[in-house]
Amino acid sequence: MLRLSIALLLGMAVTTAVAQTKEPLLLRGVGSFHIGGRHVAISGKPVREVLIGGANQRLDPNGTYIVEQMYVQYLLPQVRKAKVPLLMWHGGGFTGVTYESTPDGREGWQTMFVRKGWDVYVSDAVERGRAGWAMPEIFEGEPVFLTIDAPWNGWRFGDPGSWDPDPAKRKPYPNSQFPLEAYDNLIKQIVPRWTTTNKAIMAAYNQLVEKVCPCVLLVHSQSGTFGYEAALANPDKVKALVIIEGTIRGNAEMASKLKNVPILVLYGDNVEKSRMFSEQRDNNIRMAAAAKEVGGSIEIVNLPEVGIKGNTHFMMMEKNNAEIADYIESWLKRRGLVE
Amino acid sequence: MLRLSIALLLGMAVTTAVAQTKEPLLLRGVGSFHIGGRHVAISGKPVREVLIGGANQRLDPNGTYIVEQMYVQYLLPQVRKAKVPLLMWHGGGFTGVTYESTPDGREGWQTMFVRKGWDVYVSDAVERGRAGWAMPEIFEGEPVFLTIDAPWNGWRFGDPGSWDPDPAKRKPYPNSQFPLEAYDNLIKQIVPRWTTTNKAIMAAYNQLVEKVCPCVLLVHSQSGTFGYEAALANPDKVKALVIIEGTIRGNAEMASKLKNVPILVLYGDNVEKSRMFSEQRDNNIRMAAAAKEVGGSIEIVNLPEVGIKGNTHFMMMEKNNAEIADYIESWLKRRGLVE
Repeated sequence: MLRLSIALLLGMAVTTAVAQTKEPLLLRGVGSFHIGGRHVAISGKPVREVLIGGANQRLDPNGTYIVEQMYVQYLLPQVRKAKVPLLMWHGGGFTGVTYESTPDGREGWQTMFVRKGWDVYVSDAVERGRAGWAMPEIFEGEPVFLTIDAPWNGWRFGDPGSWDPDPAKRKPYPNSQFPLEAYDNLIKQIVPRWTTTNKAIMAAYNQLVEKVCPCVLLVHSQSGTFGYEAALANPDKVKALVIIEGTIRGNAEMASKLKNVPILVLYGDNVEKSRMFSEQRDNNIRMAAAAKEVGGSIEIVNLPEVGIKGNTHFMMMEKNNAEIADYIESWLKRRGLVE
Repeated sequence: MLRLSIALLLGMAVTTAVAQTKEPLLLRGVGSFHIGGRHVAISGKPVREVLIGGANQRLDPNGTYIVEQMYVQYLLPQVRKAKVPLLMWHGGGFTGVTYESTPDGREGWQTMFVRKGWDVYVSDAVERGRAGWAMPEIFEGEPVFLTIDAPWNGWRFGDPGSWDPDPAKRKPYPNSQFPLEAYDNLIKQIVPRWTTTNKAIMAAYNQLVEKVCPCVLLVHSQSGTFGYEAALANPDKVKALVIIEGTIRGNAEMASKLKNVPILVLYGDNVEKSRMFSEQRDNNIRMAAAAKEVGGSIEIVNLPEVGIKGNTHFMMMEKNNAEIADYIESWLKRRGLVE
């Protein structure tokens, strides 16, 4: 009931999906940079011989490295309508590609929001994608690699047991919005991830916020935590936080610190079928209550309750991704962040 | 003498660097995709417990993975002037970021060539950047990590012994075009690389060529080999090959097969101070002679001999990168590849 009432409080201003525009994009800037990182000295390792460029080369691994930087790419529309930039942070095991073209080749949120007039910054967190990664001396433990079937039940494409190696025999949830014919392309987007690097990831994100913001953060999954921490580190610079199925790890004191940062948390369909997502949502509902008590605002919206059905954990890639982008845009407009 | 005469044959049409335009970019498309990859089954590995999302999760590493895909991002100008797309391939230990903004934040070749009217495809090769990478069962051997000083002499910023941990004390070659104040940002672009993955890299590149070409390939360093192999695999689809300080590993038979693919190889300054680059250039000069014998064309241009001085191995990022882009564009125009 609480979940439903929170959705009702939002006014249920469900926008209708617009046809994807084929208008050309007029950009005043396209570019990229790395940010963060630190120098670290490594010693005591044996010299190796490696075949590079057709010749054996002596490789002395001892010396100074730069590690724990992150990568950022920006697309800046010629006509800005938003008052601040929009930073899009990916989830665990993914990169900024999350927000680029969808696995089936349609437009993603990166350029959709550029078209809406936002300066969009898409990034690869420390140790993911173009951020690069460092040797075992720097990153504790082993990286995690995901099998092709891991996302299926884990990220709510279908019930346990509904996976089949033969795509034709897989049984997704009814009305799934994921472009299932492109499932392999989602898997190709996955990169190895460590589970011990949150501190380094956060350090670079904080530097990014200090460089680019004031801004809105739009975060996914693992980055829910990073977005909330970034807001705590710079509550005056984060003007709003949009969390796609991520967790708010906070307490009353943090809620108080962020009482002026409006937070929207979106959930797709079939959350109740996943213990992990249900628990995370319950946690977020508790945090929403804590925020309300101190005059803050965390709105938790279950998309099926506002008429947007069939979404998995990867709603930014799904067939109705334009409709969900419009929903977010509408929420940001109501918060005065668009001219 | 041969080197000089080859440069003279080019007509020495040295273009002057134009001021970087600040005109907005009008794009008919921006997007990305992964291509290539294969399914591989892994078995016999122990199940692990890892802390993900705040909870211990059981991670069974056995199962099917997708490995050896690559990542591609495209920027398509509204007004095309080139007759075919331009694919930009990075060197060893780097990603497509090579062609994006320079380490000191100026415009890179990616958008420079878009402004010239080319559909530009920048990619991350297999096991680099957003392509992701696979476990030791897939990639033989250890990846290579580079120390901060490795590029200094290796890639011709300065003589051996001219490196100093203190940036103020480093002694680069005179008139260096590299934006030395941003040296750390170049290092941050480096990602780990294997030295055993050429076959997998090449398989994905060939799929890319089959999808996107006919085209021009612009390749750097390690990709010199990949570009030449890609042309051999699809001699009708590669309309020209521009190699930035890369090696042509070929023979007379290959030269014959590629007699209709014009090849331009550019070298920066101080090549004679590097045994590795000198040997690679000597090899390319031999291949140029072999190509000439069968009616093909490999032009080797030493930039200092056409008045472009002070460039390192990373000319696409250097202060005069617009001048070198103009030089390449002029060469491509003479080959009839621009309207």
